[in-house]
Amino acid sequence: MSRKETLTFPPTSIPPLTPYLPPLNKPKKPWVTLTYATSLDASLSLAPGVRTTLSGPHSKAMTHYLRTQHAAILVGVGTAMADDPALNSRLEGIISLDQQPRPIILDPRGRWAFTAENKVFQLAARGEGKAPFILVSREEEEEEEEEEASITTQQEQEKILQSVGGKYIPVEICSETRRFRWRDVLKALAEEELDSVMVEGGGEVINSLLVEPENQLVDSVIVTIAPTWLGQGGVVVSPTRKENAPQLKLREVSWQPHGEDVVLCGKISRT
Amino acid sequence: MSRKETLTFPPTSIPPLTPYLPPLNKPKKPWVTLTYATSLDASLSLAPGVRTTLSGPHSKAMTHYLRTQHAAILVGVGTAMADDPALNSRLEGIISLDQQPRPIILDPRGRWAFTAENKVFQLAARGEGKAPFILVSREEEEEEEEEEASITTQQEQEKILQSVGGKYIPVEICSETRRFRWRDVLKALAEEELDSVMVEGGGEVINSLLVEPENQLVDSVIVTIAPTWLGQGGVVVSPTRKENAPQLKLREVSWQPHGEDVVLCGKISRT
Ligand SMILES: NC(=O)c1ccc[n+]([C@@H]2O[C@H](COP(=O)([O-])OP(=O)(O)OC[C@H]3O[C@@H](n4cnc5c(N)ncnc54)[C@H](OP(=O)(O)O)[C@@H]3O)[C@@H](O)[C@H]2O)c1
Ligand SMILES: NC(=O)c1ccc[n+]([C@@H]2O[C@H](COP(=O)([O-])OP(=O)(O)OC[C@H]3O[C@@H](n4cnc5c(N)ncnc54)[C@H](OP(=O)(O)O)[C@@H]3O)[C@@H](O)[C@H]2O)c1
Repeated sequence: MSRKETLTFPPTSIPPLTPYLPPLNKPKKPWVTLTYATSLDASLSLAPGVRTTLSGPHSKAMTHYLRTQHAAILVGVGTAMADDPALNSRLEGIISLDQQPRPIILDPRGRWAFTAENKVFQLAARGEGKAPFILVSREEEEEEEEEEASITTQQEQEKILQSVGGKYIPVEICSETRRFRWRDVLKALAEEELDSVMVEGGGEVINSLLVEPENQLVDSVIVTIAPTWLGQGGVVVSPTRKENAPQLKLREVSWQPHGEDVVLCGKISRT
Repeated sequence: MSRKETLTFPPTSIPPLTPYLPPLNKPKKPWVTLTYATSLDASLSLAPGVRTTLSGPHSKAMTHYLRTQHAAILVGVGTAMADDPALNSRLEGIISLDQQPRPIILDPRGRWAFTAENKVFQLAARGEGKAPFILVSREEEEEEEEEEASITTQQEQEKILQSVGGKYIPVEICSETRRFRWRDVLKALAEEELDSVMVEGGGEVINSLLVEPENQLVDSVIVTIAPTWLGQGGVVVSPTRKENAPQLKLREVSWQPHGEDVVLCGKISRT
């Protein structure tokens, strides 16, 4: 990795984060850290598909530190398509691939038309990041086999994926929402011996994890807030309210200023 | 004022706020501090008209300190009707009415059906707050005189208002938006020798002040963020984006944790 690309995260900033990170003796269910960067008006980006820089250098370095502390990093296909994200850690001093998180992409319908040029594959080929695991619908996998046209693309993609050590993982989808159930996603990760995951985005993925009762699966929340308003029309984090669900609050709250941004750490309140 | 109602704000918390408060040598235009309390999903309340407690005791005390540092406190009629707000300061140690801000309500169409029982009038009658000035549409004032039915109510309301020392102030409305122009609102305040104003809400008022070029009238911004998500359907602060307008950012940013909440201070970036 070239020196100029790496990020420095000051050691003194680590202790206040530690209570919100996966513990050494890991629980059965993978530890889930929900983390995202937002504007004052709760936007992740100016519009769906528009990559928007929100966090400054300090909080960006923190995110890259967090990535080294988790076995996996998870995003939805919307983010994969919009951002072509690297999903590795560019933290200074990383010497081994073991320190990198496993990229997980939720793509039930196989919408991500990736090539070997996409960043995750480039990085995996160079040994600067792990190869991605793509969670696809079990059903879709079967249907796919009947469509002549897409077989070649799917086979080519599978080859790209396998050539760097990645794979498709079939997971059942909920017939009602056509989405994965979070407990099935976590079960799939556990089967891969991934005992912690950082859920980074985007909007739909985060909102689906913040609703009741799914939010009970979240072990900690780390949100970076940038002092800017993106204005109406952005990708907003705001969960759907369910009738009689308690107000979604954080406990064990800690606010840590990082440069121009603030980092909020907390745990979902169980009351 | 009974002792148990007062709020204590620690003196050590004052210096970090000072750069964001009206200076001693006041400029010609009234100093405008935009201040509100919000959830992580940028909501001011669960729904229009639903009073929602967001800030904890520490940041609430800060808001009451801020109120003593401004000549006026301004809200829209939506807030007046939803919350029956007190619009005074219950900070410990207030000994004179001079330390209280003047409540200003933007009510172009005279929608606020107040009585002597509303909190601002109760407090003004007891000398615990100043009497409100209600900004009404100049046009509406004239029309009103033709409607027989409403004359009595209007006369009664005017009597309530005047009995505590308040008044209606006619201001021109923009024929297009049917709203006040912010420069006219500030001019009206200047004419009343109110040289600083804290704009506290609600959603429409804040959003209208955050758009370009109105946001250039804002001298400082003080936002309290509570570690909770109110969920979809709330009164959201997110300004309309205008084409080619620069991204709305804050400069001279300071993050001050107050209990469970964080207080963000900043100034609108001019770039
Ligand atoms: N600021 C930040 O921290 C940050 C981080 C990441 C992304 N972003 C931004 O977020 C935007 C993308 O967000 P997005 O909401 O469009 O997409 P997204 O959340 O990344 O992906 C959503 C897609 O994931 C799939 N999915 C599978 N299981 C799901 C489940 N249980 N819940 C929800 N989705 C599931 C669905 O695909 P199907 O519809 O095919 O079923 C869904 O459409 C981009 O603009 C990106 O820049 C910002
Ligand atoms: N968390 C907080 O800090 C906080 C603070 C205050 C209020 N709130 C909440 O906010 C909610 C009320 O917000 P809201 O958006 O419904 O009402 P609002 O912003 O308080 O009042 C909006 C009304 O003000 C009048 N107005 C006059 N000139 C205006 C101008 N230039 N720009 C905008 N409005 C102008 C308009 O009346 P006409 O339509 O009659 O013309 C408009 O409908 C309540 O639920 C309240 O609890 C929260």
